[in-house]
Amino acid sequence: MNMLFPMELFFITTNRNKVEEARNILEGFEITQVDKEYPEIQSSSEGVVLFALEHLKERGPLIIEDTSFCIKNLNGFPGAFASYVQKTLGNKRILQLLGDTEERGAYFETCIGLSYKGKRVFKGKCYGSIAFESRGSNGFGFDPIFIPNGYDKTFAEMSLKEKNQISHRSKAFRSLKEYLENII
Amino acid sequence: MNMLFPMELFFITTNRNKVEEARNILEGFEITQVDKEYPEIQSSSEGVVLFALEHLKERGPLIIEDTSFCIKNLNGFPGAFASYVQKTLGNKRILQLLGDTEERGAYFETCIGLSYKGKRVFKGKCYGSIAFESRGSNGFGFDPIFIPNGYDKTFAEMSLKEKNQISHRSKAFRSLKEYLENII
Repeated sequence: MNMLFPMELFFITTNRNKVEEARNILEGFEITQVDKEYPEIQSSSEGVVLFALEHLKERGPLIIEDTSFCIKNLNGFPGAFASYVQKTLGNKRILQLLGDTEERGAYFETCIGLSYKGKRVFKGKCYGSIAFESRGSNGFGFDPIFIPNGYDKTFAEMSLKEKNQISHRSKAFRSLKEYLENII
Repeated sequence: MNMLFPMELFFITTNRNKVEEARNILEGFEITQVDKEYPEIQSSSEGVVLFALEHLKERGPLIIEDTSFCIKNLNGFPGAFASYVQKTLGNKRILQLLGDTEERGAYFETCIGLSYKGKRVFKGKCYGSIAFESRGSNGFGFDPIFIPNGYDKTFAEMSLKEKNQISHRSKAFRSLKEYLENII
């Protein structure tokens, strides 16, 4: 790794929060956001990422990312439709669906697709549970209702630094970083 | 139209109920089900159908179909994710989300993509409301909780013949039929 001439990675996403999280992990890399949409299929996050990598016309080094949010008591809903469900139902409706049930298990899973000297997928998971009410104002999406295992606060009550020590996205980005550091 | 040698249309779908509804409308055509999946993007039904037509390798005459289900009080949810939401949340959870609110407006919209002498999309809508409880056992999907405007029974309480007089899918298939009868 040459710190004077860091490797540039193009991160194709419309979500600035994800870019910020990536920059926080990928020290020594220059992350450039390419703010555009691409075809996302109705599939798992891995399916979304692999399909998009096949169909993007941009050439590497580039990354795309997709994150699923799976709630055990709702048969894995909303899965890879996390972003659509966040926009339409929102956290309030998710809490309404769960009511006061004690079965509140949930997990996030991030898949990162890398196109650079071939194609690869990196994954990261974070297990936890759905809070009984929305708490905190950091982060985005489902963060205010997700309490990671071993903690008593939601992702939205953590600083980005704290969240990045345990989050699904940070795990996937650390795997990506480790891989890149070994091949460049 | 030659009734002795009907035109054969390949209907690419994994859903037999949809094939049955299509056959009921498309008299004079031979509908052959091709039971396979194709990439469905996260978009509107029209987006899904147009993208699939671009990416299918089969050559016409073929049809694909996508139906959205939009609930006003849920910001249009589940939209084109109707099938995924039916599998994970199901009608019970939809009723739970609406509770006893009087705002129960909803509509179905079908888009049919035809690949034959070019590509075309045919649409049909049906407006109605969400019932207060699930009723009837005909049809499939959201039929037991959808009451079309002007009726006091759900789609699932109607015979296929009754449903086909007013349904979104029947309207789209009738437009398709009319178009085909004029060009063949």
